[in-house]
Amino acid sequence: MSEISFKHHGAKSSRSDRAETTAKTRIVEISEGINCGARELLLIAGPCAVEDLEQMEASAAFLSRLGIGALRGCIFKPRTSPYSYQGIGADGIALLERVKRQFEMPVVTEVMSREQIEAVYEVSDVFQIGSRNMQNFELLKEVGLLDKPVILKRGLSATIEEFLMAAEYILSGGNQRVILCERGIRSFDPSTRNVLDLGAVAVLKSMTDLPVLVDPSHALGKSEFVATMAGAAIAAGADGLVVECHPRPAQSVSDARQALSFDEMQGLVDAIAPIAEAVGRSVGQREFQKALHNIAC
Amino acid sequence: MSEISFKHHGAKSSRSDRAETTAKTRIVEISEGINCGARELLLIAGPCAVEDLEQMEASAAFLSRLGIGALRGCIFKPRTSPYSYQGIGADGIALLERVKRQFEMPVVTEVMSREQIEAVYEVSDVFQIGSRNMQNFELLKEVGLLDKPVILKRGLSATIEEFLMAAEYILSGGNQRVILCERGIRSFDPSTRNVLDLGAVAVLKSMTDLPVLVDPSHALGKSEFVATMAGAAIAAGADGLVVECHPRPAQSVSDARQALSFDEMQGLVDAIAPIAEAVGRSVGQREFQKALHNIAC
Amino acid sequence: MSEISFKHHGAKSSRSDRAETTAKTRIVEISEGINCGARELLLIAGPCAVEDLEQMEASAAFLSRLGIGALRGCIFKPRTSPYSYQGIGADGIALLERVKRQFEMPVVTEVMSREQIEAVYEVSDVFQIGSRNMQNFELLKEVGLLDKPVILKRGLSATIEEFLMAAEYILSGGNQRVILCERGIRSFDPSTRNVLDLGAVAVLKSMTDLPVLVDPSHALGKSEFVATMAGAAIAAGADGLVVECHPRPAQSVSDARQALSFDEMQGLVDAIAPIAEAVGRSVGQREFQKALHNIAC
Amino acid sequence: MSEISFKHHGAKSSRSDRAETTAKTRIVEISEGINCGARELLLIAGPCAVEDLEQMEASAAFLSRLGIGALRGCIFKPRTSPYSYQGIGADGIALLERVKRQFEMPVVTEVMSREQIEAVYEVSDVFQIGSRNMQNFELLKEVGLLDKPVILKRGLSATIEEFLMAAEYILSGGNQRVILCERGIRSFDPSTRNVLDLGAVAVLKSMTDLPVLVDPSHALGKSEFVATMAGAAIAAGADGLVVECHPRPAQSVSDARQALSFDEMQGLVDAIAPIAEAVGRSVGQREFQKALHNIAC
Repeated sequence: MSEISFKHHGAKSSRSDRAETTAKTRIVEISEGINCGARELLLIAGPCAVEDLEQMEASAAFLSRLGIGALRGCIFKPRTSPYSYQGIGADGIALLERVKRQFEMPVVTEVMSREQIEAVYEVSDVFQIGSRNMQNFELLKEVGLLDKPVILKRGLSATIEEFLMAAEYILSGGNQRVILCERGIRSFDPSTRNVLDLGAVAVLKSMTDLPVLVDPSHALGKSEFVATMAGAAIAAGADGLVVECHPRPAQSVSDARQALSFDEMQGLVDAIAPIAEAVGRSVGQREFQKALHNIAC
Repeated sequence: MSEISFKHHGAKSSRSDRAETTAKTRIVEISEGINCGARELLLIAGPCAVEDLEQMEASAAFLSRLGIGALRGCIFKPRTSPYSYQGIGADGIALLERVKRQFEMPVVTEVMSREQIEAVYEVSDVFQIGSRNMQNFELLKEVGLLDKPVILKRGLSATIEEFLMAAEYILSGGNQRVILCERGIRSFDPSTRNVLDLGAVAVLKSMTDLPVLVDPSHALGKSEFVATMAGAAIAAGADGLVVECHPRPAQSVSDARQALSFDEMQGLVDAIAPIAEAVGRSVGQREFQKALHNIAC
Repeated sequence: MSEISFKHHGAKSSRSDRAETTAKTRIVEISEGINCGARELLLIAGPCAVEDLEQMEASAAFLSRLGIGALRGCIFKPRTSPYSYQGIGADGIALLERVKRQFEMPVVTEVMSREQIEAVYEVSDVFQIGSRNMQNFELLKEVGLLDKPVILKRGLSATIEEFLMAAEYILSGGNQRVILCERGIRSFDPSTRNVLDLGAVAVLKSMTDLPVLVDPSHALGKSEFVATMAGAAIAAGADGLVVECHPRPAQSVSDARQALSFDEMQGLVDAIAPIAEAVGRSVGQREFQKALHNIAC
Repeated sequence: MSEISFKHHGAKSSRSDRAETTAKTRIVEISEGINCGARELLLIAGPCAVEDLEQMEASAAFLSRLGIGALRGCIFKPRTSPYSYQGIGADGIALLERVKRQFEMPVVTEVMSREQIEAVYEVSDVFQIGSRNMQNFELLKEVGLLDKPVILKRGLSATIEEFLMAAEYILSGGNQRVILCERGIRSFDPSTRNVLDLGAVAVLKSMTDLPVLVDPSHALGKSEFVATMAGAAIAAGADGLVVECHPRPAQSVSDARQALSFDEMQGLVDAIAPIAEAVGRSVGQREFQKALHNIAC
């Protein structure tokens, strides 16, 4: 690891620009009016896997009313076993298109290959690179050529330096819209799926101007701890959250144990709003909602 | 680890009582009016090691004015190397006595043997068992016989189950005033001293009624991240904090890199107060201070 | 992880066959007369990165004389930083071709994408999937369609179950010639690059009939420990080794600290030969060499 | 950890002497004619816990015939839970005395406090400090004053530097007969109890002249892997082994899953003997046994 050095490739390099602005977070635009890295937190929520139209419509309807900034949903699923459910695949594209238009929500979806990037290019507003692919350098180079933002999830046992170097693969390709995401690291305790490393959020904010999200769903792996850790993430300086949420969690085709119900999702937003305010941030369209509420009364 | 079972030893057992009250946190009294586990957070602060009278007087004077609940300071220091500074030793007792009386602050100090327990019994209001001794079962049995509260720090790579079983050694000895303390676990990333496992705070709160503190100083090992992680700890549900603070951090005889200056300590309290409020807690004598301030104005 | 189950896809499935033969190791043919999983250990050695013709010729000349079974050398290098040396790239293909023909040694090289598979398909006798790509499932599916053997390296923090599931991606694609390789896992001790998990070799041998290699070079990261750990790996039941070796280690363009000189490589073979014999194995062409030696005398 | 420096305390210091002799292993005498660190490996075996006279007599009878160097058996058991079996306690002392005299085998037993040291002082030839007490510095200082050898087991997540510093606590107290023992480190894989870090054996041998044992029983936690890993340990340079063995493993009061039967113990010795020879070592009284066998025939 001593071999890391920052050689700049002319226009492609991003590192020198960042050095001057480390204190300030770079604002990454997701779609018109929806940003990551601004005072307003970016909340991304939705099912782990896109299952069917009813599921996605119900999710989008609820989440857009709640003021969630973007809708997540994977159509290609990276799975430990080849015999586990691998996602709805290309059939999910039209479905995502329809929900996206209907509810005017930007869409975040994971890609694992160039073919998948091409397949979802039109519908996807943000490309997610999952933990298992954090050091899939060929894939990083591919998304480094895109003109859309990329959420890069930290590898299961990636050091912070390796995480930043992986981001550098995307940045040095020319794509400056990189968003980091801490999602728990592998450790020895069996009581949670992973260990949520919120110290990494604080450290990252001191080393880079890239915005940092936190995914408490994958980190803990148990729905009952998600809202609490979401609040802790905001207090630690996160610029937003990625949360799994499902109309009927128990029937989710994957990661059912960690998905929030709509009521729990509402509870999460209610819980983090005052913490966000306490650290000088705001939770999305909450003000808008309150305004609406006041008009109604 | 499959061998763990809960056999109850009549009056000595505490486990069955707890099962019924897991949702509510047990309130552990530190000294008159100072509690851990109540709505008001318990803040413990002070130098890593007791060095001299001037250092302790300056610390106590500042921290008591700030509304800190208890003063920490080790006179016996567990050190990785036998050739490192081992603490002021028994000479520190009179010094602690004096500062304690002068500033009316309860004192927290670490013990590593029965002899040390006996030596500091009078002056110490709370006994701390350090991470390296979390499974020093003979020591746990000793403090299980005491009539004073014990802060049990999580071992460097202790699972949550092992942590609770270690606490059970103290509880089953009869001492019901046990306070748990998460202080970072060992992991692979060299950028911080340890990984602060705030998920463990949430998990512990769901499994036991014992109050849980967080020590962000040892966890991160770098002063610049302590205040941020203190806020995240409160958001995660911690019942208080243990923070290292020194009149002149750079001159601290141990762990200088992680000690807060008085200004930074003031900043920490200012930073966590609104987060505490956001989660329905309060930061100690802050209300009292504000009242004083209002009277003065 | 509880989601793993073995659904069989008709002809593609390999799992049921293996269940009956777990005790016996599957023999994977590398090239004519060179096997992995047989009584004779498979030794693979060579430079980390292919640098130039002189380097590769010198290596192949020495290693073939030593009775090494296959020559390794990467032309595409996965690197933590995009600014580190990325390998000689496609220019290395002709070079590998030439050395391969001249010294009649099969060649092992790493691939990270379908394009790279296509590029090196003719020259490569064995495809290596590196640790960082162990869960790059799209890549695993690609090599699952090949008619050449694949060495799958364990991910930095992959459990044994995840390792076997990753192998299953290749096997279920139809490619039955999969060789596992333990190369050290990530841990907390800074004194070696990784922790060589030789217990995993024993566990793997009890769970699968796939042959298991060990890479002591990447595991320890320091040349002085490679020969000793190579011997321990053979004693633990490894079916062979992958060792980095360079004509002039200090001038190696990558991983210089762990590469063996030719003298050290000779020392390694001398050291492991009696251990191999002690566990009922043999070190490649050693018998052949001895025979030659006897003829010569 | 940057604080480690080697200040020498005159006659008490051992570090400077060692620096000159690192390549050669210090020979620690266990009892007359039984050494650790010599060409002949030291094998220590016996039950995890001393249960009753019949168990210990059967064990000692078998193990002494097998040429095992010392008998292990704990009478005080460190247990994760206070409700687990805590050992036979002081009642076991007379029992150990009797077996020791009858079979003329030196005895190794674990101590966790000064009281226990005093209780077993007469009967114990070697004091074992367990993993959980590796950084119980007060206990290390106590055994540093003894005139008997000490086996110091590596802590569950102790770095090699911390391990050596813990040994230094004993050495600097004046006791030069310290034996290190690698027994597996904590990691993420649930398939074995711990990860046996045989690389640490090689690294330790390059840093200190203290002899190094390996305990494959606690490391893997499953009896079927113990003999294989014992062989790997010898190949890695270990100076001997600590192995759990029980007349009826399934009925062992603790750690039943990892104890070897007598047949398996015999198998272990048979398996490691040729590996020992391959690395220039010998397995204890094997030569003696063979001699006896030849006389008998």
